[in-house]
Amino acid sequence: MCKTEGNGLVNGFSRGFATQTFETLLSDELDIPRRDIAEKVALVMSGGCEGVLSPYATIFTKEEMDREEASREKRLKIGVGCTRDLLPEEIGGMPQVVEVAKTVRAAMNEASIEDPADVHFVQVKCPLLTLERINDAVKRGKEVVVTDSLKSMAYSRGASALGVALALVEVEESKLGKDVICRDFDLYSNVASASAGIELLNCHVILMGNSRRSISRYVIGHSVMEDAIDVEGVKRAIKSVGVKFDCCPRKEASTRIVNVFAKTGPHPTGRIRGRRSTMLTDFDISSTRHARAAVGAVISSIVGDPMVYVSGGSEHQGPPDGGPVAVIMEVERR
Amino acid sequence: MCKTEGNGLVNGFSRGFATQTFETLLSDELDIPRRDIAEKVALVMSGGCEGVLSPYATIFTKEEMDREEASREKRLKIGVGCTRDLLPEEIGGMPQVVEVAKTVRAAMNEASIEDPADVHFVQVKCPLLTLERINDAVKRGKEVVVTDSLKSMAYSRGASALGVALALVEVEESKLGKDVICRDFDLYSNVASASAGIELLNCHVILMGNSRRSISRYVIGHSVMEDAIDVEGVKRAIKSVGVKFDCCPRKEASTRIVNVFAKTGPHPTGRIRGRRSTMLTDFDISSTRHARAAVGAVISSIVGDPMVYVSGGSEHQGPPDGGPVAVIMEVERR
Amino acid sequence: MCKTEGNGLVNGFSRGFATQTFETLLSDELDIPRRDIAEKVALVMSGGCEGVLSPYATIFTKEEMDREEASREKRLKIGVGCTRDLLPEEIGGMPQVVEVAKTVRAAMNEASIEDPADVHFVQVKCPLLTLERINDAVKRGKEVVVTDSLKSMAYSRGASALGVALALVEVEESKLGKDVICRDFDLYSNVASASAGIELLNCHVILMGNSRRSISRYVIGHSVMEDAIDVEGVKRAIKSVGVKFDCCPRKEASTRIVNVFAKTGPHPTGRIRGRRSTMLTDFDISSTRHARAAVGAVISSIVGDPMVYVSGGSEHQGPPDGGPVAVIMEVERR
Amino acid sequence: MCKTEGNGLVNGFSRGFATQTFETLLSDELDIPRRDIAEKVALVMSGGCEGVLSPYATIFTKEEMDREEASREKRLKIGVGCTRDLLPEEIGGMPQVVEVAKTVRAAMNEASIEDPADVHFVQVKCPLLTLERINDAVKRGKEVVVTDSLKSMAYSRGASALGVALALVEVEESKLGKDVICRDFDLYSNVASASAGIELLNCHVILMGNSRRSISRYVIGHSVMEDAIDVEGVKRAIKSVGVKFDCCPRKEASTRIVNVFAKTGPHPTGRIRGRRSTMLTDFDISSTRHARAAVGAVISSIVGDPMVYVSGGSEHQGPPDGGPVAVIMEVERR
Repeated sequence: MCKTEGNGLVNGFSRGFATQTFETLLSDELDIPRRDIAEKVALVMSGGCEGVLSPYATIFTKEEMDREEASREKRLKIGVGCTRDLLPEEIGGMPQVVEVAKTVRAAMNEASIEDPADVHFVQVKCPLLTLERINDAVKRGKEVVVTDSLKSMAYSRGASALGVALALVEVEESKLGKDVICRDFDLYSNVASASAGIELLNCHVILMGNSRRSISRYVIGHSVMEDAIDVEGVKRAIKSVGVKFDCCPRKEASTRIVNVFAKTGPHPTGRIRGRRSTMLTDFDISSTRHARAAVGAVISSIVGDPMVYVSGGSEHQGPPDGGPVAVIMEVERR
Repeated sequence: MCKTEGNGLVNGFSRGFATQTFETLLSDELDIPRRDIAEKVALVMSGGCEGVLSPYATIFTKEEMDREEASREKRLKIGVGCTRDLLPEEIGGMPQVVEVAKTVRAAMNEASIEDPADVHFVQVKCPLLTLERINDAVKRGKEVVVTDSLKSMAYSRGASALGVALALVEVEESKLGKDVICRDFDLYSNVASASAGIELLNCHVILMGNSRRSISRYVIGHSVMEDAIDVEGVKRAIKSVGVKFDCCPRKEASTRIVNVFAKTGPHPTGRIRGRRSTMLTDFDISSTRHARAAVGAVISSIVGDPMVYVSGGSEHQGPPDGGPVAVIMEVERR
Repeated sequence: MCKTEGNGLVNGFSRGFATQTFETLLSDELDIPRRDIAEKVALVMSGGCEGVLSPYATIFTKEEMDREEASREKRLKIGVGCTRDLLPEEIGGMPQVVEVAKTVRAAMNEASIEDPADVHFVQVKCPLLTLERINDAVKRGKEVVVTDSLKSMAYSRGASALGVALALVEVEESKLGKDVICRDFDLYSNVASASAGIELLNCHVILMGNSRRSISRYVIGHSVMEDAIDVEGVKRAIKSVGVKFDCCPRKEASTRIVNVFAKTGPHPTGRIRGRRSTMLTDFDISSTRHARAAVGAVISSIVGDPMVYVSGGSEHQGPPDGGPVAVIMEVERR
Repeated sequence: MCKTEGNGLVNGFSRGFATQTFETLLSDELDIPRRDIAEKVALVMSGGCEGVLSPYATIFTKEEMDREEASREKRLKIGVGCTRDLLPEEIGGMPQVVEVAKTVRAAMNEASIEDPADVHFVQVKCPLLTLERINDAVKRGKEVVVTDSLKSMAYSRGASALGVALALVEVEESKLGKDVICRDFDLYSNVASASAGIELLNCHVILMGNSRRSISRYVIGHSVMEDAIDVEGVKRAIKSVGVKFDCCPRKEASTRIVNVFAKTGPHPTGRIRGRRSTMLTDFDISSTRHARAAVGAVISSIVGDPMVYVSGGSEHQGPPDGGPVAVIMEVERR
């Protein structure tokens, strides 16, 4: 999972550049063809390092456990999976919700996590609609959810998040349907994080949770930020991994927080704590860039490190004004 | 003092627009010609509301004290003043430093403040070099400090800040000279805040401090942020006005904090806590916009309100990576 | 009619700034209250001077003819008018079309122009939907055409243009309806030019044509550019005012062309002469800014002067890929 | 030679992305290691497709002539070469001028071109100063020409262009020196085109000219545009390859023009034909983006195709306000 430079929007080429670079590197190192890398390694690129945010990569590696017995305490475990390729007319609609939910359930299974409460962050990398893909659908007489590439990113993220919510029983199936996607933002997942990219046609799922079937030195926890400056949400997330503190985590604690993952997006009304922001009416800097800059600075100010993962576009990811925030902590020093 | 929208740079027209609007309004209300407003009312416009920052105005009004006796405690008092018009070749150089220092001393006097330690924020609005002004100097055979309008904003802010530092004895006169301006950033003022604008040719000084010769309900204090995410600096500034708290100010305290003023700018190396930021290498969003977004979010997260004054470009204003932060608190409820 | 700086979008404040400046200037000069200026003088601000385009103003003045007889040849004549204030729910819909059409007919009458073929440029300044206006409609239980401020500019321009087309019998009334606005771009006016601005609630119409009831030294003509680089369209417009040339106008002719007015917008497919442009997928620079830069340079290269009026957003203004282009020529030297 | 998307500045990652993509593709096709591609194939990426400009690649291929005799007429011939890696302190200075000149002479030799008048376009891809490179020089006690990455691109392009001018005897050696680079713009080459990129440390030269020792179906010619809207300069360049026309080339001619290469940059005063442009004072869109948009549209309007190569930053490349423009024409149909 990388934070790359660029605007994080349709023409944010650094995501594709980083993907290609990692694929090439891994192809050389693992001695397998570049085109097979995506099957072996899930690469998630989130564009946009605004404010103090620093471009970086978080590398998750897997080790096989050779012992049968369970750990004493639940530890970080990751499950990955991919949906089938989506047709342009499926992107941003119910087929995407359903396919993502299926893949999330399979990833839980793979990670030996039974209780949805043990799932703390589900990153979904999902496709967007390009002019070519839209035209392809149109030629086949199909309708796409939206004909604007930028907006299609929102729909794709929204459908992915609702797929997570469905799999984790955060939202009832009966409440879902085409008409709620990117409309009824009271339906959301507290752990979903979706990023849309031009470089794929299916959805990649990286599910992070805690499981007894893990020998990792790390645990993960989460909370939600209620809005872009909800510093208490960040603190709740830090407490959720067992760090004890009254008001602010001490510096020693910060060194054991290895990463923070957060999603953010501007509130539909453009207001924060009742004050007008300029996010929605600024056409020189896109609203997600404003939001990432703010949330990135707030989280950095608590953990003392600007190398955190803040991704923009939080449709159905956390409450309407805010977003999920997850924390990974090292519980056992090497 | 206003935060206006726009990029806060040479073509950030909302500063001029707001100035004109206020001048027109005040001209109508006070029934004096528009061109005389600037002599009566100091208008400071700082452009750029990035991240969560909200456009707003802080209006300072003056009431004459009718009693001779001093207050029991020191309270907010403001002194204002203007330098003479600067020639293009003086902008960003020692003549500006000297003129600003003179005006700061006069403003202290006006505000009945004797001890420089009672001065907590000195806002200087200063001119920049336009192509027209540069050409004017060139025609007269004079040299300007820099021929790039954007850079001239930095030099003008830097010279203004060093003028404040000189007046408040933060920097010794012998250390000052043409060669240190925008070069030796170890020389700085902890209370200077300078904004450059196209709409003036002289420097306007608004000096804020505490004085016994005041019957204001407010007090002011300050500290510095060591870098863009130095939340402790913000807390120190809040404590400096007498708010008592261990770790974070309580919500009740926040409602009495009526404003926070801060300056910020990207660090010369582009690094924050040792991490690479993209501020200096991003040519889609200027570095001051990144910096304002970050500092604005950090301060807002502490005071619970995005209506704070964060201004970009902190040459010689606070330590190299950070900037001054001042807090005004209501000590007496109306 | 002014070209001002800025992005020409919702937060392009230079339009409002220029309007206020002109209103203040005219109020002082004419000695009438500022708020009454809009009734006396139609001010049209088009934001965005990309590429070589130069910020400038075209001032049209009116002189009363004291003789009864007609001119020998038709000369430039201008009619102006305003619709009533539009409700938020009317903006971008058929009520706007109908109101604009009514006002265009009245303006023709005022200008003593009977034949629609004598109308060569109809500038409409129209309102946009702000968050406040949208919320106002929603509170009253009304629906707006679109809830995105930027998109509302397109709908408002589109409805205005179709209003012009209706009045000038370029489109049959029976073909118009809510569903064609910003959808069926085969319906358009060849002389409409619409700009949306935040600073008004009604539509201002400035109609330019030729009439025998004019003693002006100028004539106006028009053509359309079929796409952004259709230099032949510009030449046809120049020929339409009587300039004679085979291939390109001679330099002498250029000095008599006092102004060129053009509208442009990116083609819905983002392609120009079959080549992919980046206009629609660039989220650092808006598509209208790209389009204005291109058309402005093409026109400037023909007339040898970058002080031309190119305005972005050409919904229903000229053919889908292109836009109207009008030329004013001085036929009688002073 | 490619036109890629992005801002064409320090953080225009599409140049590096395209380079990597081509290197990977060529590595696979030619079955040689990726790191050896740069020695076999000169890749020149120019970022920024503003206005109507279309992203595309021009591929030059080489065929060995098996016959000894010369062609009847001079035809397109290309010579390529690389300088040694430049030290950070050499970038933008006389060492770069001298190294480029040497490489240009070698490339002429390789292309069997003796007369400098037969050289029509010399593309130089040159390095820029990054923070890392600057710090490296500083550590070794060396001084760099400028400490601003963006400005270093200008110095590197300028030094490259003067290297071309030196080799082609357009500027006398005695007039050159550290102090004229990016200062005395009256010294320039009419055929140099330089692009700075982060992805290399040496200068790559691609020299294009006409030679009897060529069996190409193409010829090349050139002229200069005196400013951004100098359509006559474009026409002169087209005439220089033998296309006959009075005023504008006919459509049939356009189909045989296979490419146009041009350089452009804003004039130091920001004025075009005496009119103020906003290029130099716009801090939302960089000046080179404005300039490319304008020149790209002007050239496209003449050749009827937006797939032309317009590159920004024309220091010492053509006259101060303009830049070189070269045309490749197919003289023999396949």
